[in-house]
Amino acid sequence: MTNPLSTRHRYGLALLLTLALPLLAQANEPLPSWHDGAAKKSIIEFVQAVTDQSSKDFVKPAERIAVFDNDGTLWSEQPAYFELLFAFDEVKRNAPQHPEWKTTQPFKAVLENDHQALAAAGMEGLLKIFGATHTGMTTEAFDDYAKTWLSQARHPKTGKPYTEMIFQPMLEMLDYLRSQDFKTYIVSGGDTAFMRAFAEKVYGIPPEQVIGTTFVTAFQLKDGQPSILRTAKLAHNDDGPGKPESIDAVIGRRPILAFGNSDGDLQMLQWTAAGSGKRLMGLVHHTDAKREWAYDRQSSVGKLDKALDQAKNNGWTIVDMAADWRRIYPFEPAAPEQVQ
Amino acid sequence: MTNPLSTRHRYGLALLLTLALPLLAQANEPLPSWHDGAAKKSIIEFVQAVTDQSSKDFVKPAERIAVFDNDGTLWSEQPAYFELLFAFDEVKRNAPQHPEWKTTQPFKAVLENDHQALAAAGMEGLLKIFGATHTGMTTEAFDDYAKTWLSQARHPKTGKPYTEMIFQPMLEMLDYLRSQDFKTYIVSGGDTAFMRAFAEKVYGIPPEQVIGTTFVTAFQLKDGQPSILRTAKLAHNDDGPGKPESIDAVIGRRPILAFGNSDGDLQMLQWTAAGSGKRLMGLVHHTDAKREWAYDRQSSVGKLDKALDQAKNNGWTIVDMAADWRRIYPFEPAAPEQVQ
Repeated sequence: MTNPLSTRHRYGLALLLTLALPLLAQANEPLPSWHDGAAKKSIIEFVQAVTDQSSKDFVKPAERIAVFDNDGTLWSEQPAYFELLFAFDEVKRNAPQHPEWKTTQPFKAVLENDHQALAAAGMEGLLKIFGATHTGMTTEAFDDYAKTWLSQARHPKTGKPYTEMIFQPMLEMLDYLRSQDFKTYIVSGGDTAFMRAFAEKVYGIPPEQVIGTTFVTAFQLKDGQPSILRTAKLAHNDDGPGKPESIDAVIGRRPILAFGNSDGDLQMLQWTAAGSGKRLMGLVHHTDAKREWAYDRQSSVGKLDKALDQAKNNGWTIVDMAADWRRIYPFEPAAPEQVQ
Repeated sequence: MTNPLSTRHRYGLALLLTLALPLLAQANEPLPSWHDGAAKKSIIEFVQAVTDQSSKDFVKPAERIAVFDNDGTLWSEQPAYFELLFAFDEVKRNAPQHPEWKTTQPFKAVLENDHQALAAAGMEGLLKIFGATHTGMTTEAFDDYAKTWLSQARHPKTGKPYTEMIFQPMLEMLDYLRSQDFKTYIVSGGDTAFMRAFAEKVYGIPPEQVIGTTFVTAFQLKDGQPSILRTAKLAHNDDGPGKPESIDAVIGRRPILAFGNSDGDLQMLQWTAAGSGKRLMGLVHHTDAKREWAYDRQSSVGKLDKALDQAKNNGWTIVDMAADWRRIYPFEPAAPEQVQ
């Protein structure tokens, strides 16, 4: 029997290793869709500091709580919050059972795509639309409606399912954090049940780690069969100050990392920042009109004004989507690494 | 060099193994403080069925949600809910700052240990006592008060800290479930923040897995310092139908195992039972006047009447504390195994 590692074989193996090692290194490097800039660096340095047992900044795994806004932070939110587009579609789908909607605002405006009348209906109008499409049914029925819509609806600009309009760099950040024993939560203004309909599949975030706006529910027994009815009464508005309130109520620990993209995330970022020890506060800044959208201080959706000033003043991480991300969506090819 | 495994050594090793194996088996056997009766058997058979990948009853780890009531299920609740005794002690501690309490009900009744006047004050009076002792402070301040009381107060009958009056067999059940990738939750009428003050240390249940009664909170910024204020407005009463409602709101999955001890747990048990696939519903029946307390249908604390009937009719697991548990509290020696 000859030695299988002959000189020729050994050279071949060496060559293979030479070729493969950089690829392996690249595969294991976190955040591959992030350019090597200050934002990526701040995330990796933070994670290394709090997970290094010899570091003064070490945090026990149980306390590695990371919270993320959803709309505009984990997926796009233009031309309107995707959940609002779901509500509009549900009004249209249910219109045949509600002939009165043809002549009643704000439903008439939805059916006629009358943006001006919709804007005039304001928050009160929106709550009526949410009441009609999100409540008056069991939690299981709502989950079915949301899943059906998510599987069928397409975004007006990209033609993609909404669940594909998620940010690849943020998916990588969620994965990276979980690989370092962080518990990743969504804390967002969206309806908790709507977000749960896709968060586990799309983000790997289980229902018990999804915190959002909630309606009062009522346990009911019909013919011995229990169910939980969603009523139209708002229980908690998970926006602005509502975010640290729900974090305290549901998680009961202060996060050490928080990411948002708008003024609605400011209090969550302040609450996170005010804890002791090392923390990371971050904002996704929508600066990429070409690959996504560019908006901040003047936007009616995802307005980013005060939080941007505070982020700059306090040295929080600001992610410049155009400059920091090699790709936006998973379905796109990555841009080549920039020369720094 | 001689072979270290000489014949003599090998005999020695075999002897050691022969002696050690039964001990190891005993150490690894779950639920050692449970007598080998029907209750223990039902728990072990359930866990084996849902964790066996080849079983038709297999449940994925992510869906192994187990919920437990606290008062009367994980710890004692006599002569009154321990949290109520905390509230009474806090009234007494704070009385010097509230001279008006000497002449105002229900505070006067608490200060004078006047049980009759307290009973007459009813639920409205209790809410006033909870409002005065549980709210009007930040969540962090409340956590401090609760922890201080828990470390200093002693039970009037046993003289033990309340956090030692926990049920050893239930601790073993929690451990056993977690070792089989269950996520264990408390779902109880107690104040969420009060239970969080000891649940992690005492039961190994982290704050985010403690669900209870909540008060409305308010995020506030004072001199740039954010905090969360507990207001006296009740947000959610986590009793009866409130339990499946909060399970749905916070966990978003239906449990496959639920344990309680009173009619306040009935709807949680019904909600758990109505899911598809194998499930386990259980009641702790307080039958041990000698080692703990004996009470059920007529008790003002932890009344167990309708739920007992439904448990019997539906074949739910009923734990007879006197007959099923070899010991009640961790500080007691275990009773010898019964001859079956």
